[in-house]
Amino acid sequence: MKQQHGGAPSNRPDLLDFSANLNLLGMPDSVRDAIRESAESCARYPDPFCTELCAETAIAEQIPPEQLVFGSGAADLIFRIVQTMQPKNALLAVPCFSEYEKALRSAGCAIRTYPLLPEHVFMLDEQFLSMLTPDLDMVFLCSPNNPTGRLIPRDLLQKIAAICAQHQIMLICDECFLGLSSHEPAHSISAYLNAYTIRLTAFTKLYAIPGVRLGYAVCGSSEIAAQIRDCGQYWSVSAPAQAAGLAALKTQEYVHRSVKMITKEREYLTENLRSLGFIVYDSDTNFILFRTYEDFAERMLNENILIRDCSNFRGLSPGYFRIAVRTHDENRLLIAAAERSLHG
Amino acid sequence: MKQQHGGAPSNRPDLLDFSANLNLLGMPDSVRDAIRESAESCARYPDPFCTELCAETAIAEQIPPEQLVFGSGAADLIFRIVQTMQPKNALLAVPCFSEYEKALRSAGCAIRTYPLLPEHVFMLDEQFLSMLTPDLDMVFLCSPNNPTGRLIPRDLLQKIAAICAQHQIMLICDECFLGLSSHEPAHSISAYLNAYTIRLTAFTKLYAIPGVRLGYAVCGSSEIAAQIRDCGQYWSVSAPAQAAGLAALKTQEYVHRSVKMITKEREYLTENLRSLGFIVYDSDTNFILFRTYEDFAERMLNENILIRDCSNFRGLSPGYFRIAVRTHDENRLLIAAAERSLHG
Repeated sequence: MKQQHGGAPSNRPDLLDFSANLNLLGMPDSVRDAIRESAESCARYPDPFCTELCAETAIAEQIPPEQLVFGSGAADLIFRIVQTMQPKNALLAVPCFSEYEKALRSAGCAIRTYPLLPEHVFMLDEQFLSMLTPDLDMVFLCSPNNPTGRLIPRDLLQKIAAICAQHQIMLICDECFLGLSSHEPAHSISAYLNAYTIRLTAFTKLYAIPGVRLGYAVCGSSEIAAQIRDCGQYWSVSAPAQAAGLAALKTQEYVHRSVKMITKEREYLTENLRSLGFIVYDSDTNFILFRTYEDFAERMLNENILIRDCSNFRGLSPGYFRIAVRTHDENRLLIAAAERSLHG
Repeated sequence: MKQQHGGAPSNRPDLLDFSANLNLLGMPDSVRDAIRESAESCARYPDPFCTELCAETAIAEQIPPEQLVFGSGAADLIFRIVQTMQPKNALLAVPCFSEYEKALRSAGCAIRTYPLLPEHVFMLDEQFLSMLTPDLDMVFLCSPNNPTGRLIPRDLLQKIAAICAQHQIMLICDECFLGLSSHEPAHSISAYLNAYTIRLTAFTKLYAIPGVRLGYAVCGSSEIAAQIRDCGQYWSVSAPAQAAGLAALKTQEYVHRSVKMITKEREYLTENLRSLGFIVYDSDTNFILFRTYEDFAERMLNENILIRDCSNFRGLSPGYFRIAVRTHDENRLLIAAAERSLHG
């Protein structure tokens, strides 16, 4: 049972974890308190409709609550969307988050891939449009993309949404990291939502609460939202997750503060890794993809620092790594350890 | 967005809730404390393998950990099992928990039903065996059955398991309420597990923690366990749920104590409801099905008591109701309210 994703294994709490892309400020105190206080309510079934959370989110998203579907993390919704739609042919821009492919394969869907290339600094480009053929049923995109960190240009996103609607291709745009990008919300698919669009997002990264499992889908169609809601258990969001979400929505200032810090610290890490001779790709969010020695993750593990070895991402090879942008003190530790590891 | 199941709506905390079939002793203090203390760990991804919980459960179940799959409640696993197997034809003994049918329909599966009849006091009988034809792919059974409260006789269960294996029909036996039955574990499908058997169970009812979402499947085959694990997100069990489960496993004495009280209180409720002229079906677990005036749930709601109107169960009609067995003081309140409602 090998780790397939970032995140420190539970038996290594001693590691400084740069492998999980969470908000550098950590979990807000108010959210931690809300989870603690939710313990009592665990003796009752959770609200299957997430009524309060749904109403608050609808206001924040400026969307009717009927178009929202909450799940046990965005990853839960990825599976439920695929199982609802049962696509036969799907398209992925790779490298990308591996759960898209896992969900599609579990439904027996054929997968086509469009390569994001290092020579194009992993940017999605206009050539992608030619892949959007009428025989496709589903497209997954991620913006900013995991693990490359790149946003999809706005005009390209608009064209993709229009072509997908024209060919009745369901477009799933995963924006789990958009809230941690300084370009949010201008780059959201929200502006181009149509009946064939689903925007995915999560509380996980934004509020550093991956342990509670909470995400949601904004559907362009309330009919499709209802179908996804029905394709999965009645009580899909736990009481602690609903409580955490409600508390999180009240901490907007915290997110603004994080984004400022992330932008500054991303520059610090990018510059310093480049000065070590690494190939570092520009990022629009809270993690950075870079290329260096193939054994770099092992070297860092010797320093008790965990980074994400990206060699198991489709489209990448040994030597690619991803690190989260953390606080300045932590980032300095990483850079110092990286320096030591090169001269050790 | 109407209630489809038992459990008080979140905006009516004032109701005395007999509609949810939870352990009458409520959530153990140690479990509540574990959930509270898990808040801190929500800042990390939950262990995708539920390593510790899986190891402890494997010991308790006397089964290799590879044959266990944890999920976000048994209801989550119902959907994941169906989505993994993609059955074309399935059989249900009705009335039963409606999520089986919902999951099967979401996968486009055709459903056959075998009626559990009031004239047979809703017992599953030998005639059911003739329904187990080779063209079937899946059978869901529940023992004790929800909402009828009846156990499946041991010898019948053994025959069903054998015929299912012979015809390669996947048999899912939901034993979520078996731990609250005085006949446990002698009536478990565990004794007859084969490669075509899955036993489902949950922490929800046994420890009165429906809010955290935690259940597991015991698979006769580790290959099938691996397939179900892959058909769903990587982090399907939250940190609070894993913590709650570990604490719950240490409270065996609490479960024994509940079962004794349930048996006694079930008799009290059965006798008293019968003395009011209701048709009350004998139950083997912590809830009771009975028949009376069609507006009985409304009458009880006027008394601020919520009971489960069972008219939306396939195979039942208006006038059927289900109540949980609660503590003696609560049960006395229910009986007194029932008496008043009849003479009011």
